[in-house]
Amino acid sequence: MTIEASGAARGRKIRLGMVGGGEGAFIGAVHRIAARIDDEYELVAGALSSTAEKAKASGLALGLDPARTYADFATMAKAESQREDGIEAVAIVTPNHVHAAAAEAFLKAGIHVICDKPMTTTLADAKRLKRLVESSGLVFGLTHNYTGYPMVRHARELIRRGQLGEIRVVQVQYAQDWLTESIETSGQKQAEWRVDPKRSGAGGCIGDVGTHAYNLAEFITGLEVESLLADLTAFGPGRTLDDNTQILLRYKNGARGMLWASQVAPGNENNLSIRVYGSKGGIEWHQEEPNHLRYTPFGQPTQIIGRGTGAALPSAARVSRVPSGHPEGYLEGFATIYTEIARAIRTHRSDSAKASKGKGKGKAGKLDPAVTFPTVEDGVKGVAFIEAAVKSSDKGGRWIKL
Amino acid sequence: MTIEASGAARGRKIRLGMVGGGEGAFIGAVHRIAARIDDEYELVAGALSSTAEKAKASGLALGLDPARTYADFATMAKAESQREDGIEAVAIVTPNHVHAAAAEAFLKAGIHVICDKPMTTTLADAKRLKRLVESSGLVFGLTHNYTGYPMVRHARELIRRGQLGEIRVVQVQYAQDWLTESIETSGQKQAEWRVDPKRSGAGGCIGDVGTHAYNLAEFITGLEVESLLADLTAFGPGRTLDDNTQILLRYKNGARGMLWASQVAPGNENNLSIRVYGSKGGIEWHQEEPNHLRYTPFGQPTQIIGRGTGAALPSAARVSRVPSGHPEGYLEGFATIYTEIARAIRTHRSDSAKASKGKGKGKAGKLDPAVTFPTVEDGVKGVAFIEAAVKSSDKGGRWIKL
Amino acid sequence: MTIEASGAARGRKIRLGMVGGGEGAFIGAVHRIAARIDDEYELVAGALSSTAEKAKASGLALGLDPARTYADFATMAKAESQREDGIEAVAIVTPNHVHAAAAEAFLKAGIHVICDKPMTTTLADAKRLKRLVESSGLVFGLTHNYTGYPMVRHARELIRRGQLGEIRVVQVQYAQDWLTESIETSGQKQAEWRVDPKRSGAGGCIGDVGTHAYNLAEFITGLEVESLLADLTAFGPGRTLDDNTQILLRYKNGARGMLWASQVAPGNENNLSIRVYGSKGGIEWHQEEPNHLRYTPFGQPTQIIGRGTGAALPSAARVSRVPSGHPEGYLEGFATIYTEIARAIRTHRSDSAKASKGKGKGKAGKLDPAVTFPTVEDGVKGVAFIEAAVKSSDKGGRWIKL
Amino acid sequence: MTIEASGAARGRKIRLGMVGGGEGAFIGAVHRIAARIDDEYELVAGALSSTAEKAKASGLALGLDPARTYADFATMAKAESQREDGIEAVAIVTPNHVHAAAAEAFLKAGIHVICDKPMTTTLADAKRLKRLVESSGLVFGLTHNYTGYPMVRHARELIRRGQLGEIRVVQVQYAQDWLTESIETSGQKQAEWRVDPKRSGAGGCIGDVGTHAYNLAEFITGLEVESLLADLTAFGPGRTLDDNTQILLRYKNGARGMLWASQVAPGNENNLSIRVYGSKGGIEWHQEEPNHLRYTPFGQPTQIIGRGTGAALPSAARVSRVPSGHPEGYLEGFATIYTEIARAIRTHRSDSAKASKGKGKGKAGKLDPAVTFPTVEDGVKGVAFIEAAVKSSDKGGRWIKL
Repeated sequence: MTIEASGAARGRKIRLGMVGGGEGAFIGAVHRIAARIDDEYELVAGALSSTAEKAKASGLALGLDPARTYADFATMAKAESQREDGIEAVAIVTPNHVHAAAAEAFLKAGIHVICDKPMTTTLADAKRLKRLVESSGLVFGLTHNYTGYPMVRHARELIRRGQLGEIRVVQVQYAQDWLTESIETSGQKQAEWRVDPKRSGAGGCIGDVGTHAYNLAEFITGLEVESLLADLTAFGPGRTLDDNTQILLRYKNGARGMLWASQVAPGNENNLSIRVYGSKGGIEWHQEEPNHLRYTPFGQPTQIIGRGTGAALPSAARVSRVPSGHPEGYLEGFATIYTEIARAIRTHRSDSAKASKGKGKGKAGKLDPAVTFPTVEDGVKGVAFIEAAVKSSDKGGRWIKL
Repeated sequence: MTIEASGAARGRKIRLGMVGGGEGAFIGAVHRIAARIDDEYELVAGALSSTAEKAKASGLALGLDPARTYADFATMAKAESQREDGIEAVAIVTPNHVHAAAAEAFLKAGIHVICDKPMTTTLADAKRLKRLVESSGLVFGLTHNYTGYPMVRHARELIRRGQLGEIRVVQVQYAQDWLTESIETSGQKQAEWRVDPKRSGAGGCIGDVGTHAYNLAEFITGLEVESLLADLTAFGPGRTLDDNTQILLRYKNGARGMLWASQVAPGNENNLSIRVYGSKGGIEWHQEEPNHLRYTPFGQPTQIIGRGTGAALPSAARVSRVPSGHPEGYLEGFATIYTEIARAIRTHRSDSAKASKGKGKGKAGKLDPAVTFPTVEDGVKGVAFIEAAVKSSDKGGRWIKL
Repeated sequence: MTIEASGAARGRKIRLGMVGGGEGAFIGAVHRIAARIDDEYELVAGALSSTAEKAKASGLALGLDPARTYADFATMAKAESQREDGIEAVAIVTPNHVHAAAAEAFLKAGIHVICDKPMTTTLADAKRLKRLVESSGLVFGLTHNYTGYPMVRHARELIRRGQLGEIRVVQVQYAQDWLTESIETSGQKQAEWRVDPKRSGAGGCIGDVGTHAYNLAEFITGLEVESLLADLTAFGPGRTLDDNTQILLRYKNGARGMLWASQVAPGNENNLSIRVYGSKGGIEWHQEEPNHLRYTPFGQPTQIIGRGTGAALPSAARVSRVPSGHPEGYLEGFATIYTEIARAIRTHRSDSAKASKGKGKGKAGKLDPAVTFPTVEDGVKGVAFIEAAVKSSDKGGRWIKL
Repeated sequence: MTIEASGAARGRKIRLGMVGGGEGAFIGAVHRIAARIDDEYELVAGALSSTAEKAKASGLALGLDPARTYADFATMAKAESQREDGIEAVAIVTPNHVHAAAAEAFLKAGIHVICDKPMTTTLADAKRLKRLVESSGLVFGLTHNYTGYPMVRHARELIRRGQLGEIRVVQVQYAQDWLTESIETSGQKQAEWRVDPKRSGAGGCIGDVGTHAYNLAEFITGLEVESLLADLTAFGPGRTLDDNTQILLRYKNGARGMLWASQVAPGNENNLSIRVYGSKGGIEWHQEEPNHLRYTPFGQPTQIIGRGTGAALPSAARVSRVPSGHPEGYLEGFATIYTEIARAIRTHRSDSAKASKGKGKGKAGKLDPAVTFPTVEDGVKGVAFIEAAVKSSDKGGRWIKL
C-alpha cells in the first residue's frame, strides 16, 4: 500500500486538464478515475469534445468551471498557460488522429502531457513529438496502462534478475470479440472511429490493441524486436483496416515471438495474455485475472504467485494497494501509471522551484529510479511497430527490419 | 458506466470525516480510495487514531487541515456539528469495540454514519444503534463491501427472477491463511486486535470474515436463516477466539446451508466464495475472480457470465464502470457501497432542503429503489449471527434459533 | 509407467467373474475396462443380471462361454468353485442390497472378492463379512476407486511425510446434479434403485457418494473421525432417502471437518473435491481435473504439482502410466485398484503354491507394502459412517460418536 | 458408453502384432493399453526392438509366445502372413525412419497397418505408401490420437453444423518443456532419436508435435491450408533440428492461422490447445483438460460443454465411455482410434468372407459413416506440411504453397 500513503501527503494536487473524453466516450472516464484513485490530481479544465456544445455539456456534467470548459484544445492550451492557477498537465484521450497536434500545443505551452496510445498516426509525427518533448524538458507519459499491473512488474523483475535464463520464446496475444459483427455501420461510436483510417491511422486492430501487446512484451522481457512479418486481415465486410493481426517476431537476442491481436474472436472479452520462456523457466500472465502470475522454474512445479503476498517482488509490492486476495484490476493498474507520472511531475516541480530560486534553468531532477511509466520513446516504438507491420502485410507478408 | 457519470455532476461533494484509519491501518486507506473513486466525497476531518500524536501525524500525512484533526471521536463529533462546513458523514473504521460508541456520538450530532463490520460487539449495542438510527432519520451504511460486486448483484437478480427455482442448498465460505501462525505474538497489529476479545468481541474469525459470508448468502439468496449449529475452533496456540468456524444453516424455506470461515487455511488468500443451488439451476461465484459468475440452468451447459457483457442483468450493469474484460476488483466493489450511500445522503439533503423551505421536518425522501447498500438492519443480523454461533459452539454444537 | 510393465509379465492372468453389470448397468462396464487396462484379468464367467434372460443376453454380448453365464450368484459360486479353471476372483457390481450375500457366497467358495461400495446395507452385515474375510484368508477389495488416482496418493504421502504439519481442517465434498429432478419416477434405472431404501439401504446420497468422500478424507489424511453431526435432506418430491447431505466432523486429533454430498446441485457433474489444511501447509484436489494437485507450503506460493512430473512423489509415480500432460482419468484410477488387488491375489497364489508343496496352509504372503487398496475394514468404516449419519440426522442433528 | 458395449460382442478379437515398443519405449505401452481398453484386439506377436536380444526379452515380458517374438519386422511380416492364426493387423511404433519400410512389408503381406505419426520421413515415401494402401485395399490407420477425444469430435460437429459461421481464425499450439535442457546428450532415449535427423527426418519439434497440431486443426475445422510461412528454431545447444516452431497459416477459404509448437517452453507439460473463431462464434479446447469444451455463440455467455452431458453432440457421445464428470483421458482417446480402426478391419473381414463365398475379391465394405480415424491421406498431408515448413524456414521464412 505504498502508493496511496504517499498520495495527498506530497503536497498540492496536480491541476489536470483533459482533451476528449466527453459524453459517449469510454476511455475519458477511465482516465478520470485513474487520476483520482491515488489522490494526486484534480481535474480543473477540459476541451472534452470536438463539438463545442457537447464540450460544454460534458464540462458541466463533470462539475468543471464553465470558464475552463473550452471548445478546442488550442484555445485551452493558450488560456490555461496564461492563468496563475492553470493546469500543470493535460490528459489527451481523443481518437488517434488528434494526439499529435494536441500534444504539441500543450508542450509548447509548457504543460506536461499524458497521452493515450497509439501516440500518433504516423511515424514522422511520433518522431517530431519526441524531439519536442526532449527540448521542452517536460514530462510525457503514454498510457500503456497494462504495464501498471503489479504482476507485470513482478514478471519484468523476475526476468531482469535472470530467473528465466536467456529468453527464447515470447507468445503474446490481445484478443477481443466486439467487432465480430460490423457494428460500425449501426452507429456504435467506439467502433466508428476505430475502423476509420482517417481517425485511427493505417492500423486498425494492430493500433488499437496490438500495440499494447507489443509494448507489454518489450516491457516485460526487456528485449527489442529486430524484424517482424505480419499478416493483417480485415474480416468484417466493408472494412479497410485490419481486425485481425498475426505477426512473427525476431528479437535481437535470437528469441522468437508470435503476436496475435484480434477484435473478431468470439468469447474473448479483453484477453491480453503473455507467456515468456527462457532457458531456465517460464511465466504466464493473463490480464483478465491480473492478480496472479504463473512462474515455472524449469523442472519444478509451476508456482502461482499472488499480488500482495510475501512472494511478490519489490517492484510489484510498490504498486499494490490492498492485501492479497483482494483483487486489484484495470483501474488500479491505470492509476499506477497516473501516479508514477505524478511523481515525475512533482520532481519537475521541485526542480523548477530550485531553479527559480537559483540561477537559470534546473537540470532534470532525480526521479526515483523505481518509477516506471511509458514515455515518448515507447510511443515512437509503438508507431514504428504499426508502420512496419502494415508495410510487411501490404507486401504480402515479408520480413521487415525495425 | 452509469455510476461514474453521475458522480460530481450531482453537485457539491459530500464532506466526509473518518474515525480510525491512521498509520499502520489497512482498512482506512481502502475506505478513502473507495470514497474517491466515484468522486462523491471529500475527506475533510478525522480522528484517525486513538493515540493523539498518531492522530495528528496521520492527519498531516493525508493533507487534512490540522484544525480538523481531532484526538478523539467525541470532540470531533461535537466540533464538526458546530461548523458551517462541518462533515455530513463519517466513516468509522476502528477495531470493532469502538464502533457503537462512535456511531452513537455522530448520529446524535446529526451526522450520517458509514460503519465497518461487525457493527458492534454485542447484540444489545446493535439493537440500541438501530433504534437510534431510526429515530434520527439519518443514513447508516454498513460496509459489507462484497455486496457491491456487479456479479453478486447479478446473482441476486437471477434468484429474484426465479431462474434457480426454489433454493435448496447454500454453500458459502470465507477462507484465509494469514493467522496460520500466531503472528499476533510478534507485533502484527492487524492480528493483535483481531484475536483479542476486548477489541473484537466474542467472535474471532466468525466476526472478522464469517459475518461477511453470512451477509453475502442472505444478500444473494434473499433467504433468512431460521437456526444454526456452529463448531468454532481456535487452532493457533494461546488463542481464545475462534480462527476456524464451521456452521450448518437451516433457512426458513427449508433450504440447507454450510458456512465455513477460516483464517488458518494455507493457500487461501481471501477466498470468499458462494454456491447456491435450486430446483432449476445453480450459481457459483468467487470473490478473487469477481468479474465472472458461473450459472447453470439445470440440464444445460454451465454459462460463464461476464461483468460488462450484454448478458449482465440491469442490477449488475448499474454498478459497473468499465467494459467487460477490464477487471474491476475489490476497491470498485467497495466504492459502489460508498456511492450508493452517497445517493441516500443526497436524497436526505434534498429532503432537508425542502423541509427547511417548508414547514417542519421532511419525510424520508424517495431513494431510487435500485440503490442497495447494507444498513443498520444488516448490522443487527450480523451481530445476532455471531452471538448465536458463539452460543451454539459453547454448548458443544447445538442448534440455536435465530 | 511401472504398473503396465508388470502386467502380463507376472504370469497367467487372473480368471475373473462378475455379478451384476449386465445390460443397462453403468458400473459393470467400468469394472470390466478397469480390469483390462493393465492386463491382469480375463473375464470368464458371470451372473450379470437378476433376470435370467437378461443375464444370458448380457453374457452373450460380452462373449462369455454360455456355460459360464449363470442365472444367479449362488449357482455361479458353486459351479465355478468346482471347475479346474474356475474363477479366482469375482467382481460384485450389483445394487447395494445384494453385496453382502453375494460376497459371502464367493468367499465361502474360496473365491477372492472385489466389491462395489457401500459394502453392505447394514453394519451387522459389514461386520459379519469382515469376520468371514479374516477367517478365509482371502483377498477382499472394495472399489473406493478414487483412492487410485496418482495425485491422491501424492497428497497422502505429503501428509505422511509431515509436510502439512498437524492437520487442522478437512473440507471434502462430492456434488452431482443428476437427481435434481425426480427422474426415478420416469424409468431411469440408475436413479430407481438409488432412491429405494430396499436396494440402497438407509442412506441415499450419503451412501452413493458421501461414503466416497468420507473414505477419501481418511485415506488422504490418515485421520480417524471421532464424532459427527449430520443434516440429511430429501429435496426431490416423494423421496424418502437423502439427496443432500451436510455433515460436521470431529477427528480424533482435534481436526475439524465438513463433508457435503449432494445429488441436487445443478452444474456439478461429479465434483468430488478435497482440501486439507495443517499447521504448515495446505492441499487441494479435484477429481474432475485429477492430474494436478495444488500444494501450498505456508507462506510460499501455491505449487501446481503434475502427475508424471519429476515432482510427483514415489507413491504417485508408481501408479502412473503415461507421461505428464497426457491426462489419466477415472478409468485409470479404477484400474489401479484392480491391479493392486491383482498383486494381492498373486501373492496369495504363490503362498498357496508354497503351502501345497509344503505342509498345510500358508501364512499370509508378503505383499509389497506400497500396494494400497481399500479393504473390508474400509467397508466396515463406510457403513458405520452411513449409519451414524442417518442416526444423527434422525435425531434432529446431534453429535454421534463413531 | 456405446463403444465398450460393442467390444467383444462383435466376435473374435483382432490378432495384433507390434513393431517397436520394447523395453524403454513409451509409446508402445500406450498402444497396447489403447488396444485393450475396448477389448477389440489381442496382442500375439512382435518385433519389439531393433536389437534382437531386447526384442526377445520384451516379448517375454509381455507374455508373447517366444515363437512369435521376432528379431526384425521383415521376418515377422513373412512368418505371420503364413500362419493360419497370423496377425491381422500390426502396430508400428518405432522411431519415424522405420515407419515406411515396415508399413510396406506388412501391407505387402496382406496385413492391416496401424502406424504412428509422422507417417514417414519423406514426402516421396508417404506418397508411395498411399499408393500401396490404395492398391492393397487394406486398412491403414494413423495414430493422430488427439482426434479421438469426444470434445474434439464435438467441436468438429459444431463447425460442420455451421454454428461458428464462416471460420476466420485458427490458433493452435502444442507446447512442451521436456527438451528445455539438452537431455539428449545424457542418454535420455526418447530425446536421443527425436533430435537426430537420421531417425526423425527433417523436422524435429514440428514432426514430433507440430504435425499433431496441424492435423487437429484440419480435423476440427475441415479447412485446408493453402500456404504457410515457418520460422523453425533450434535453441538447445548443438541441436540441428528445430525445438521451437512458429508458423503462419493461410487457409483456402481465407481464414488465417497461427501454429506454435515447442519443446522448450518451461511449464508446459503436453499443452496441445486449439481455438477457432468464426463469424458466429468461437470454441476453445485444451488437451490437458479434455472433458470440457468452451463454446461461445457470439454475443452470448461462454458455455462449458461437458463430455457425457446431455449437451454433447452425437459424434462426441458415440466415443464416450463413462458418465460426465468421470474424466476420460489420453488413453481413452487413443483407444477410440484403435476401436474405430477395428471397425474398419471387421468390415473388411466380413467383405472378405462374403467374397470368398462368392466370386473373387470383395469391394470395399460399407463402413459406418460415423467411424472416423486418420488415414494414409492424413499421413501424406502431415509429411507435406513438415516438408513445406522446413523449406519455408530454410529460405528465411517465406510463404510456401501446399
